Amino acid sequence: MPASKNELQELVIELGKLKTKMYNGDFLCTWDKSDDELRAVLTTAEILEAAYRSNISMGMFFGKLAVSIFRDQSTRTRFSYASAASMLGLSLQELDEKKSQIAHGETVRETATMISFATEVIGIRDDMFLGEGNKYMREVSAALDESFREGVLPQRPAVVNLQCDLDHPTQSMADLLHLKQHFGSLENLRGKKIAMTWAYSPSYGKPLSVPQGIIGLMTRYGAEVALAHPEGYGLVPDVVDKAGSFASESGGKFSVSNSMNEAFAGADVVYPKSWAPFAVMQERTKLLMAKDDAGLGALEKRCLAQNAEHMDWECDAAKMASTRGGKALYMHCLPADISGVSCKQGEVSADVFEKARLDTYREAFHKPFVIAAMMMLTRFEDASKTLDGMLRRGERAVFAG
Amino acid sequence: MPASKNELQELVIELGKLKTKMYNGDFLCTWDKSDDELRAVLTTAEILEAAYRSNISMGMFFGKLAVSIFRDQSTRTRFSYASAASMLGLSLQELDEKKSQIAHGETVRETATMISFATEVIGIRDDMFLGEGNKYMREVSAALDESFREGVLPQRPAVVNLQCDLDHPTQSMADLLHLKQHFGSLENLRGKKIAMTWAYSPSYGKPLSVPQGIIGLMTRYGAEVALAHPEGYGLVPDVVDKAGSFASESGGKFSVSNSMNEAFAGADVVYPKSWAPFAVMQERTKLLMAKDDAGLGALEKRCLAQNAEHMDWECDAAKMASTRGGKALYMHCLPADISGVSCKQGEVSADVFEKARLDTYREAFHKPFVIAAMMMLTRFEDASKTLDGMLRRGERAVFAG
Amino acid sequence: MPASKNELQELVIELGKLKTKMYNGDFLCTWDKSDDELRAVLTTAEILEAAYRSNISMGMFFGKLAVSIFRDQSTRTRFSYASAASMLGLSLQELDEKKSQIAHGETVRETATMISFATEVIGIRDDMFLGEGNKYMREVSAALDESFREGVLPQRPAVVNLQCDLDHPTQSMADLLHLKQHFGSLENLRGKKIAMTWAYSPSYGKPLSVPQGIIGLMTRYGAEVALAHPEGYGLVPDVVDKAGSFASESGGKFSVSNSMNEAFAGADVVYPKSWAPFAVMQERTKLLMAKDDAGLGALEKRCLAQNAEHMDWECDAAKMASTRGGKALYMHCLPADISGVSCKQGEVSADVFEKARLDTYREAFHKPFVIAAMMMLTRFEDASKTLDGMLRRGERAVFAG
Repeated sequence: MPASKNELQELVIELGKLKTKMYNGDFLCTWDKSDDELRAVLTTAEILEAAYRSNISMGMFFGKLAVSIFRDQSTRTRFSYASAASMLGLSLQELDEKKSQIAHGETVRETATMISFATEVIGIRDDMFLGEGNKYMREVSAALDESFREGVLPQRPAVVNLQCDLDHPTQSMADLLHLKQHFGSLENLRGKKIAMTWAYSPSYGKPLSVPQGIIGLMTRYGAEVALAHPEGYGLVPDVVDKAGSFASESGGKFSVSNSMNEAFAGADVVYPKSWAPFAVMQERTKLLMAKDDAGLGALEKRCLAQNAEHMDWECDAAKMASTRGGKALYMHCLPADISGVSCKQGEVSADVFEKARLDTYREAFHKPFVIAAMMMLTRFEDASKTLDGMLRRGERAVFAG
Repeated sequence: MPASKNELQELVIELGKLKTKMYNGDFLCTWDKSDDELRAVLTTAEILEAAYRSNISMGMFFGKLAVSIFRDQSTRTRFSYASAASMLGLSLQELDEKKSQIAHGETVRETATMISFATEVIGIRDDMFLGEGNKYMREVSAALDESFREGVLPQRPAVVNLQCDLDHPTQSMADLLHLKQHFGSLENLRGKKIAMTWAYSPSYGKPLSVPQGIIGLMTRYGAEVALAHPEGYGLVPDVVDKAGSFASESGGKFSVSNSMNEAFAGADVVYPKSWAPFAVMQERTKLLMAKDDAGLGALEKRCLAQNAEHMDWECDAAKMASTRGGKALYMHCLPADISGVSCKQGEVSADVFEKARLDTYREAFHKPFVIAAMMMLTRFEDASKTLDGMLRRGERAVFAG
Repeated sequence: MPASKNELQELVIELGKLKTKMYNGDFLCTWDKSDDELRAVLTTAEILEAAYRSNISMGMFFGKLAVSIFRDQSTRTRFSYASAASMLGLSLQELDEKKSQIAHGETVRETATMISFATEVIGIRDDMFLGEGNKYMREVSAALDESFREGVLPQRPAVVNLQCDLDHPTQSMADLLHLKQHFGSLENLRGKKIAMTWAYSPSYGKPLSVPQGIIGLMTRYGAEVALAHPEGYGLVPDVVDKAGSFASESGGKFSVSNSMNEAFAGADVVYPKSWAPFAVMQERTKLLMAKDDAGLGALEKRCLAQNAEHMDWECDAAKMASTRGGKALYMHCLPADISGVSCKQGEVSADVFEKARLDTYREAFHKPFVIAAMMMLTRFEDASKTLDGMLRRGERAVFAG
């Protein structure tokens, strides 16, 4: 479905009308950004998607790096980041901490500059340590600010949060774009019920950033966001507070309960996903820092036992039947723990997942474009003008003769 | 020896006349491809080689990925793939399974799509497990088919087999191009005797895909292919059958013997190379899957002892003297086990290898161009038209002022 | 401070007047290069820096590789190399020896060619083994010579020394450019006192290549180079001899003492940095090759104890006060061991380092451009003409619309 050239031009004009102040900054948490700024990300991502489908090259950088720092495993985000970088013409360079040890403090300050002489963007995933990931990103950011201000760096690379302990904005924004396209517009999210619920998984230590990212973002559009989890599986309190405030401001609702069934009842959207209890993540962070393997083993055992008390928190056909018209949109950041497929008993039953599977792939498709949008909006003073130039230039991404 | 512009144009026209159906497909095994399709690979590779030597840029992709998955060690193929990708303008991104665990089943299906949103080609090496490598590639392929058909992926990435348990088509096609240039044409292969023989090596567990690839391809051109190996070192029966059928169809010959001397006698081409017995590879696959280190150790010991009974299977000056005019073309996929150089006693004597050494490098030179040709023919509906466009565009690969 | 187009053109003309013979060669040691050749590296680096700041694309390669081989850890040089490659349009491909075992002898010869079919530059760091690193680079170089001469390779990749056991030319040339800009010209280095001194560090086994690179280069410009280190911390004698000869030829001075205070007295530039004694590196090389972990442990212990006798070799405020006007330029290749910051007691006091910190970042900034200059001068017969073409082409590095 390549958009017509006129439709593309209209989106570019729409983008130009939004008031944003992201140039020479970072993209760390959605809650730091204004409504116009978030809308600019979505619009830019949609332009990039349409250009991609229309075979228009979006090569706007030449000879510059996109650096990535993955402090935790990743396939999806790694490839999304690589795709976004490549799309805009950036060369990817990974800072592998096994190859080149980096840490906190002085080392972070220095390394941030040393990897940035020809760098436009630094994408960071750091979600293992509660209270640490976001802090680390802000340390990198402050170092870049200084080096740019003092003329050491000719350009100010943007830090893009590829998942931290607090937020996972490239995921939540891709999810928001999926919702926008599903319901036709952001305005149509008003009054929709979105169930962000915990779900059972035979694993432990999953980060909190996905549910936190969802409640901290979807509450801004007048939706009714129902967070549900078993007792003791609470999220970072500060983010829960933010979700409440956003709901009030937007005329939406935000509730927290301990009932998956309650959250699912009449929901338009369900997002059932496992995560570790906040308190467990705090304890785990301490043990990880102390490199206490015995302690970590004991914690894992205890936590898996605690999870096992809630094996009924599975998204199955019966629960789906209780959603609006039995047809709620199922969402997941992938990979899901699918009962009888990827594990014995998990977050979602095989039949429910199979029905939604291709749609979760479409949800994931947005991520490279959302990341590329964040790159553009932080690296161009007027992204609308740049995109307009790209469209007028009209170079093909694939040269077929 | 840069080709003249006219010669290049003629090759492009020749390519345009071949009937191929490779667009939006894969390149997994040569025996799945028609004669015209194989000829198209050779012709495209020759055009790319000539363009390379003539400093004409073959940049036809912008902002797209070439993904590689190496489930086994590789230097040569890794660099050939990287060179091919770079030549066409693709950004390389490796899926490192240590970084991001992938497996069979649901995970393969999902991961195949997750790494493909902006991907044109996925190169896979998976040659450790007999009965598994090729199967894995076909799983990836089926997943890509579904995601493309369902509109999840805007383009259908091609899977290129960088060596599996059955075939090693980028090697055998590079070898075929080497033979074509050595003898002047494919037609001149008719009646030539090609000895594909086992050779002694003090190592074990070497894949079967090179000899299988050679007998499954060279039998298609009317040559007399003589496969020779000690008793108990047979290849996968199905591939041996294919070689027989191809020889009948092409008017060539295919023989299997247990005598290196017989195979070498009067040969125009010799390809002496070690491999593990089929039965050993089957046992090894079981042990690898069971992670039975003790069993693997015992098998290795037994297999090395078995190899040691055939230390006379060395390509030495005496054996070379028995080939046609004593001047057979020596071929090897490299690295060779060279007696007294890389090991005490190996596949080839030092004097024979040294005489052929630079020529084996020339043989290897074709590989990046063969891979690039496979990429082009699977990703362009009319590769001839694309190449014609490239030549008319006339951009330089190195801009010297 | 983007240079005006006229200033850039003048630098290009200046470059064109220098007599250089670097085309189709390598950049291994500064002492192999003529004065004009070193000046050409600085001038080219300055042109590239100015073009970078002026948003002029320096993309001069398409579809070619820059290979890197890191036989030791690296962050700074890795990113500098990646930045240089990207700037010129080269795709980076790392030869990871864990992924693909390479060694000396036949394997080096073969591998050098196998990774070079579409390669313009091979950057190598090999500084762990005294007597080995530089030798390895020359082996690679000889292999490339042969394959190019014999027509196996259509182009002759340049080997760039990213640090060996003898020299660290990308560092010393970046340092020289820093000095040139600090003092206004190379001519102004005449008569300046440069103190290259050992400094205490609670680590051991640091390579000798930085101090060797500095004394082997800075002595060529009429400066007074004062090398100082505790007894028993001597450098490779051959390089020390070279420094003496260069000083005589250039009308400068070169002295070796065992007093940090003497070296600092009246110095215009100080470069306090830890390194391991020559004899220790020889012993360590033997132990590393023998994989004698116990021996290595014992050596480390003994060496740390030896270091600890010289904890007063710290660059502190008192020593800085003794330099010319108390204002010597502090230099370091980074990371420095900063007392009370990165270690308890180290090479430099926290106050001295903090004052110089941003300036050491500026020093490091030159490295990607120096590497890119080495790439250009070895890969273009007339780099001046290429640069002139780039400037006339006038493509933007960042396309802002």
